[in-house]
Amino acid sequence: MAAIVILGAGVMGTAFSVLLADCGHKVFLVGTHLDKDLIQGIREHGTHAKLKVRLPDGVAPFTHDQLGEVLSNPPDLIVFGVNSAGVEWATDQLTNYLQASVPILMLTKGLAVKDDTICILPDIVRRRWTGHGLQVGGVAGPCIAGELAARRDSSMVITHPDAALRDWLVRLVNASYCHARPSQDIVGVEACAALKNFYALGVGFANGLLTVKGPAENGALMNNVAAGLFVEAVREIRYLIDFLGGDPASVYGLAGVGDLYVTCQAGRNSRMGKLLGTGLPYSEAKAKHMPDETIEGAELALAIGATFQRLLEQRQIARAQLPLAITLLDAVCRDQAVQIPWNRFYTAP
Amino acid sequence: MAAIVILGAGVMGTAFSVLLADCGHKVFLVGTHLDKDLIQGIREHGTHAKLKVRLPDGVAPFTHDQLGEVLSNPPDLIVFGVNSAGVEWATDQLTNYLQASVPILMLTKGLAVKDDTICILPDIVRRRWTGHGLQVGGVAGPCIAGELAARRDSSMVITHPDAALRDWLVRLVNASYCHARPSQDIVGVEACAALKNFYALGVGFANGLLTVKGPAENGALMNNVAAGLFVEAVREIRYLIDFLGGDPASVYGLAGVGDLYVTCQAGRNSRMGKLLGTGLPYSEAKAKHMPDETIEGAELALAIGATFQRLLEQRQIARAQLPLAITLLDAVCRDQAVQIPWNRFYTAP
Repeated sequence: MAAIVILGAGVMGTAFSVLLADCGHKVFLVGTHLDKDLIQGIREHGTHAKLKVRLPDGVAPFTHDQLGEVLSNPPDLIVFGVNSAGVEWATDQLTNYLQASVPILMLTKGLAVKDDTICILPDIVRRRWTGHGLQVGGVAGPCIAGELAARRDSSMVITHPDAALRDWLVRLVNASYCHARPSQDIVGVEACAALKNFYALGVGFANGLLTVKGPAENGALMNNVAAGLFVEAVREIRYLIDFLGGDPASVYGLAGVGDLYVTCQAGRNSRMGKLLGTGLPYSEAKAKHMPDETIEGAELALAIGATFQRLLEQRQIARAQLPLAITLLDAVCRDQAVQIPWNRFYTAP
Repeated sequence: MAAIVILGAGVMGTAFSVLLADCGHKVFLVGTHLDKDLIQGIREHGTHAKLKVRLPDGVAPFTHDQLGEVLSNPPDLIVFGVNSAGVEWATDQLTNYLQASVPILMLTKGLAVKDDTICILPDIVRRRWTGHGLQVGGVAGPCIAGELAARRDSSMVITHPDAALRDWLVRLVNASYCHARPSQDIVGVEACAALKNFYALGVGFANGLLTVKGPAENGALMNNVAAGLFVEAVREIRYLIDFLGGDPASVYGLAGVGDLYVTCQAGRNSRMGKLLGTGLPYSEAKAKHMPDETIEGAELALAIGATFQRLLEQRQIARAQLPLAITLLDAVCRDQAVQIPWNRFYTAP
């Protein structure tokens, strides 16, 4: 049995707490200041208001002001369940309270800019950390939180730079419904997990076109369009992983095509992609239809857009390899109407 | 302008005739003996009864007994639009009537057994051909016939052993809504196109499980299950392409993940997979629910099942690399109830 602190009580952090408790671990689920109501709800009813599941006894809920108390006994593992905007805050909290180094596993997904280039979030945490040496891994994969929390068969990839720790982490989540596999490619897996949200916006264009044009007279939908966008997304993610220094093959596994597949079936990124596909400018789609929702794929575009543009201009990345990414960035960062650049798709690698 | 004979007036052959006519070619659409009513309908109303589109003027309909007449002037290209069971019949028809060699392009997808091993359909045609030297290529990709015929953006891969012919074929389908790319990997592309039907049965299991278990109390569906099956399908197709002598990278393009994606969204293979996922034996699912439908993925299993078994026993292919294929073959060829072998999935390549 391990003692595990999860920082962030959103749907993914909490679903992971269910999994860990099911595996016999003692879980300290610590909400951020944004999670007060969720933690309060768990205390009162035993259920998480958004995830809509009853939490097992092995999960103990805490508010963010109790973090010091929780960390007074260093746990075996700390899991980051905050959203991408909360990574630096969470890291600072830990440096305030932790005396010894504890392995960190990130559920949080995204890319960030540091020193004028694009990097994965575990690198942000490592660089910001002012305490002892720190090793950061991550979890990725086709794993919708609500399904994991409902104990439906779910697959995931676990990365960590330390091979022994990686294997230990895989054994840690050994529930019958959880199918975890190790990977040593932290950069590739984390990049896949972040980029799938971004590219799911693009695959979502197909539903937008369907909304505008409707089914054809013979009942035809837009599945061919969606599949074409899916292929181009996979091709471009591969290219970007290679640029970021990861293993391009990661895009063909759970964290890549698997997670992209599941992300394209439903969710906020798909819905925003559909709105963009109808021809709406991003600012209007966001303000009118999804004002209070965090759209991770669009957040990613806004976070890396300017740097991406500079990398294109300096030819560190090739415009010809990234037509869908450029279309997406033009839509989100410059409010341009979407036109799918079919004739630039499927460039040979 | 080219003169092109399409043999087979099913939905895919006819959708391709629309594309070719839109590109300015003269198309002779010759139905098989099974297509009499369809050809009759086209003559009377100008529309194809199953595809539900009006055919352009450039498409001229013929019945199978007119094939000799049609071929009396050798066309520039012959397209096979028959189903996989009709390939040998179609080849024999051509050897009866054709005096000169004409390039052949196959829409028909499948694998077959010849000389006790598994091979792609263009090889079957080449071996059966008794006339002049013959070069056979194929079309694959995420291309639902009804959507292509409705002129919705559709992507495809065109293979042919002759590079100049391959490029000519790509130029031949240069409609604004058609995004064709050449590939020299005939084996890999054809294997992808055939195996996607087979593996779509497997991804369909997720919908069957959802039917049995229903949504969870928190509304959770089975998308994580579907995505996991999708990843394993991609991994196994890659392995099988390598065994068959193709380029494993083809699975990551239009003919592979693209066509698998679109095939998993809808269609007969998905529906049969769903039935199998509920626990129904194949024979019962077929007889009760889909008695009059050709399920290409199941036909493939029945065609290659015994040979596949022998290849496993002789360790020419590795059991550990093919857990989903084995589950599917056990279901279709041996009527065994489906149990997803999660712990054998995602084996490292």
